[in-house]
Amino acid sequence: MTEFGFIDTLRTLCADLPDNGFEGIGDDCAVLPVGEGRSLVFTADLLVEGVHFLRAATSPEELGAKALAVNLSDVAAMGARPVATLLSLALPADATDEWAVRFSEGYHALSQRFGVALIGGDTTRSDGGITINVTAIGCADSAHLKRRSAARPGDILLVAGRLGASGAGLQDLLDSRYDTPAAAVHRNPLPQVEEGEWLGRRPEVHALMDLSDGLASDVRHIMAQSHVGAAIDLECIPVADGADLRLAACGGEDYKLLLSADPRCAKSLADDFLLRFGTPLYPIGTIESSDRLRWLQNGCEVLLDWKGFTHY
Amino acid sequence: MTEFGFIDTLRTLCADLPDNGFEGIGDDCAVLPVGEGRSLVFTADLLVEGVHFLRAATSPEELGAKALAVNLSDVAAMGARPVATLLSLALPADATDEWAVRFSEGYHALSQRFGVALIGGDTTRSDGGITINVTAIGCADSAHLKRRSAARPGDILLVAGRLGASGAGLQDLLDSRYDTPAAAVHRNPLPQVEEGEWLGRRPEVHALMDLSDGLASDVRHIMAQSHVGAAIDLECIPVADGADLRLAACGGEDYKLLLSADPRCAKSLADDFLLRFGTPLYPIGTIESSDRLRWLQNGCEVLLDWKGFTHY
Repeated sequence: MTEFGFIDTLRTLCADLPDNGFEGIGDDCAVLPVGEGRSLVFTADLLVEGVHFLRAATSPEELGAKALAVNLSDVAAMGARPVATLLSLALPADATDEWAVRFSEGYHALSQRFGVALIGGDTTRSDGGITINVTAIGCADSAHLKRRSAARPGDILLVAGRLGASGAGLQDLLDSRYDTPAAAVHRNPLPQVEEGEWLGRRPEVHALMDLSDGLASDVRHIMAQSHVGAAIDLECIPVADGADLRLAACGGEDYKLLLSADPRCAKSLADDFLLRFGTPLYPIGTIESSDRLRWLQNGCEVLLDWKGFTHY
Repeated sequence: MTEFGFIDTLRTLCADLPDNGFEGIGDDCAVLPVGEGRSLVFTADLLVEGVHFLRAATSPEELGAKALAVNLSDVAAMGARPVATLLSLALPADATDEWAVRFSEGYHALSQRFGVALIGGDTTRSDGGITINVTAIGCADSAHLKRRSAARPGDILLVAGRLGASGAGLQDLLDSRYDTPAAAVHRNPLPQVEEGEWLGRRPEVHALMDLSDGLASDVRHIMAQSHVGAAIDLECIPVADGADLRLAACGGEDYKLLLSADPRCAKSLADDFLLRFGTPLYPIGTIESSDRLRWLQNGCEVLLDWKGFTHY
């Protein structure tokens, strides 16, 4: 059973459970309104040795930071500010005390950078490899929360950074080239925490999510949740140094924010973003009233079977 | 490094992080006041194949329910009501689709029994065994939350059920006797969800926690957090069918609630509990103004080096 197959099974089975005030599965985070116009958001990510990382190809500090980063990115993708995490860690006997301390230091450093509390978790022995689960909690004004379901036909699609560096880095790592700039990007994802919170406050931003499985895959979540289609201009996709167009569209783990915005305000939004963060918001296409993803080259559709990155 | 060694390392390292309104690590759950006199509580537990369970000795349904149960028990141990969980699951290729569906059914059935929502999580492939992380969220009136730090000298120590059945069941399982009543108890822990919420509302209950590592170990958490000692009457420890006194004191995973209560009200508390739940609250000793744990037999101290159950 694939990851999505199992999630569908669980979702179907659990549809009859009470929601207890939480908004259901389907976005980067679950949402709980807590009164006074505020909401909390919740997300969890699991990192498994041999599937998500190779111990020989990443330092313990990098792994500690990455386990946190991917969760902070999910919180940012809601327009929320991360406030706390719970860290669960299964450690085999061959992970030394020094490894555990250095892992903790990486986790701590990124927590400190973004002002996130560590409020709990669990630690245990493992008979297999290292497994890490992080649950992150964020908060936001309820009116500022952004959802995948909010895209509207005519919206401009924008991405908050260049794409493909992480995918190129993964290829380097799999080829045992550990010291390339792209490999360093892959091992050290930086979540767009401040960018997410800033975009959350902008009403002209409609749908928002983070790119973890690749643009070609992730944009389909916005399409499905918003019941819309999309057209992406291949020549507008911002390709990171060391990557190519296909990696930029299909590579995973870039952790850049993808958003749809009111077409009347997209230009001023990007101008303000550049002023605030010193980097552009790149317009890459438009939301359409269909259920299709169209790739355009010089305005003409090209047929591509591009899919996102998958661990399976 | 042991589980507690790693947690201490993390706690020390992370002491300089902002708390963002959360109460720190040290209780069954972390606490976040959310306004209007209400609080949310958070806990996470990791279950690892070969460490916490043997696939041959437990059904998928039982494992799904147990992964949830141990977390609901932590929420109940705060006097809170569990409202939602996030489930993360790493599945090896030899766990079939049928296994995954049956695991989900067990998780769902216990969620339904206690009215708990499933709000998120993660699923991935595993190169090793099965690993499960559950994060549970509970809510309560802030005034009803119970902490390990609230025991006072003179308090009566009580336990909300007979002890040792799970420990006896673990011994049976390790001896490949899978069909004994005790083994069934070990595989099917039932968290005292309603009991915990009920005890939370009683002001005469001071400290509260759940017994996961065994009385001999867990009572020391109340002692350490409350800066008190304790005297436990060996003849008062309620021993479950199939267990003996040592298993009742040292066996793990009973998931019964342990509490300290105002001595003037302990009798009426136990009477009301019996009326409400049909089972006794067993008085097993007293809280003392020392830093020692004393085991008493007919009122005289006996020296025992009993410790709780540990996975290491």
